Amino acid sequence: MIQEEQVLAALKTVAEPDLKKDLVTLGMIKDIHIDEANNIACTVVLTTPACPMKNQIRQSCIDAIKTSLPEAGTIEITMSSKVTSSCDHHECDHERPLKEVKNIIAVASGKGGVGKSTVAVNLAISLAREGAKVGLIDADLYGPSIPTMFGIYDAKPEIISKKLIPLEKYGIKLMSIGFLVETDTALIWRGPMASSAIKQFINDVEWPELDYLIFDLPPGTGDIQLTLVQTIPVTGAVIVTTPQDVALADVSKAVNMFRKMQVPILGLIENMSHYELPDGTKDYIFGMHGGENFAKAQAIAFLGSIPIDREIREGGDKGKPVVLSQPRSVSAQAFSQATKEVARQISLFNAHMNAKQ
Amino acid sequence: MIQEEQVLAALKTVAEPDLKKDLVTLGMIKDIHIDEANNIACTVVLTTPACPMKNQIRQSCIDAIKTSLPEAGTIEITMSSKVTSSCDHHECDHERPLKEVKNIIAVASGKGGVGKSTVAVNLAISLAREGAKVGLIDADLYGPSIPTMFGIYDAKPEIISKKLIPLEKYGIKLMSIGFLVETDTALIWRGPMASSAIKQFINDVEWPELDYLIFDLPPGTGDIQLTLVQTIPVTGAVIVTTPQDVALADVSKAVNMFRKMQVPILGLIENMSHYELPDGTKDYIFGMHGGENFAKAQAIAFLGSIPIDREIREGGDKGKPVVLSQPRSVSAQAFSQATKEVARQISLFNAHMNAKQ
Repeated sequence: MIQEEQVLAALKTVAEPDLKKDLVTLGMIKDIHIDEANNIACTVVLTTPACPMKNQIRQSCIDAIKTSLPEAGTIEITMSSKVTSSCDHHECDHERPLKEVKNIIAVASGKGGVGKSTVAVNLAISLAREGAKVGLIDADLYGPSIPTMFGIYDAKPEIISKKLIPLEKYGIKLMSIGFLVETDTALIWRGPMASSAIKQFINDVEWPELDYLIFDLPPGTGDIQLTLVQTIPVTGAVIVTTPQDVALADVSKAVNMFRKMQVPILGLIENMSHYELPDGTKDYIFGMHGGENFAKAQAIAFLGSIPIDREIREGGDKGKPVVLSQPRSVSAQAFSQATKEVARQISLFNAHMNAKQ
Repeated sequence: MIQEEQVLAALKTVAEPDLKKDLVTLGMIKDIHIDEANNIACTVVLTTPACPMKNQIRQSCIDAIKTSLPEAGTIEITMSSKVTSSCDHHECDHERPLKEVKNIIAVASGKGGVGKSTVAVNLAISLAREGAKVGLIDADLYGPSIPTMFGIYDAKPEIISKKLIPLEKYGIKLMSIGFLVETDTALIWRGPMASSAIKQFINDVEWPELDYLIFDLPPGTGDIQLTLVQTIPVTGAVIVTTPQDVALADVSKAVNMFRKMQVPILGLIENMSHYELPDGTKDYIFGMHGGENFAKAQAIAFLGSIPIDREIREGGDKGKPVVLSQPRSVSAQAFSQATKEVARQISLFNAHMNAKQ
């Protein structure tokens, strides 16, 4: 009968493509079972359920076992995940806010209207669909879009023991100023009031254990951004832009701000990258590859291009984002791919941070 | 020989279409000249050079003179203008800032990225092309677009007697934070600092006599908007939106803010209203007539629809806005038409305010 050590030896030849170490050394192999007929089952614990190389890793494991152990019967690899956090190994401040949250993602943009909320929402839902525990904070106090995009019009969060309980929809824990005040009321808030509202979203909400908590930030480089990075350790920022020069000029400012504040930049997503005509040609209305070129020039990971199309807008307006309403569409696929890149960058960053300890 | 009184009597039959009074009563007829051959020349002084009914009024004057005075020779009507101000007749605070400025227009939006700066820039240039004296303040301190849209990259405003001298391009007097600090530097400004910057743009810049001073506001309803309306008497706000629901939700807030602050709303411009396919059909990517319907529901004047197209974006990115670079294009025509509607609303509002005195 095949022994567990033999399986481990076989799997030691499989490298995690990003981390460049083998799965056994990384501690990613669990629950090896071998029965009398040499049927083998084991679990690979990835660092994120949204791992873009999930299928590739699974196949490599099967191939490695088959090659090393030709006597093996059926091989069953279960892909599981335990999301890493940059605080996993080093001494984190145990009094910090949101300590039940493994990773905090700031979705930011230099300019407004580039589709930041659309990206944040589709990112959150895509992560949840992959199996992650996800929360989303609508930090755009002056123009909250999350209630509309999730189709939540009347629900109010409960208050239990002086804490706000987040709403939940599509498996996402949600908080937005739009759930607390009348939607039509102008929020004429001076800066310091906006800062204290964002602190309340962090401290006075009963956030459960989460793999990813996404902040949909307002555009620009103002009070709310400052407050966020000064209040909690942000894992990294996802920058959203459209391709035109006037948008990129503002992105530059946002990138500089995050760098100054020592917030890692996970990468850049180019939204409204092109319009696809019925004959399949693309009209690069806002300029060709502006975001991608910018990312290259700034040495920022390019996380993907999202086309400009009606399905995306309709998904947002109708309260059922495109990754749910049209999951097979080109747009949904683009979001799903970008989501996996975000998750991958976080895993890489966490591995890097934890290796430093 | 025809007498001046006869010409005036003829012109007393011509009504100003918006103000519903005749041109003579409104004091709009100047410099009547009649020579021995009964050739008649006179000047009509409109309330704005961008009057959308300019040609119609001119033709009505010719027809009225021809009908009443068949013995007239050539008739030469010169169209001129003297832009009105809401302070023309009533007791204005003579110590107020910007007293050399007749009208202050706030171009605002609830949401960012709807093309507010693009509208502000094309509005400013269109007004100047009609002959008005125009200034433009880039009040979007966190994401100034005006330098790029005017193709101004290096110029710095001079300082004379402790006052900043506005730059000038395409006949527009310009001021932007982008002229004062490094373009790539993130403006990580807390609210109160932003407010004081906007006050400096009002008080510490040597603004000349202007018919229209346009503020390109940042999106939303925050500090800068509050500071502006509390510092100077704003003639009115032009609201820019795109047609989709999530944008309109934010517009609602902006409209409510201006109403609360008692700033008149001159009207709404719908940007990115549709994409025109090569066969002429229109793809209402962001929803059909969202802005127009919203304006109707809110009893706000609808000032026009601007299509989504590459020329507009290219004009902005290349520093030569579409009304200058492609003046005959559909987009330029749309901007030009919307500009005339803005000027018309201001004239109407001023006439109304001054009539109240």
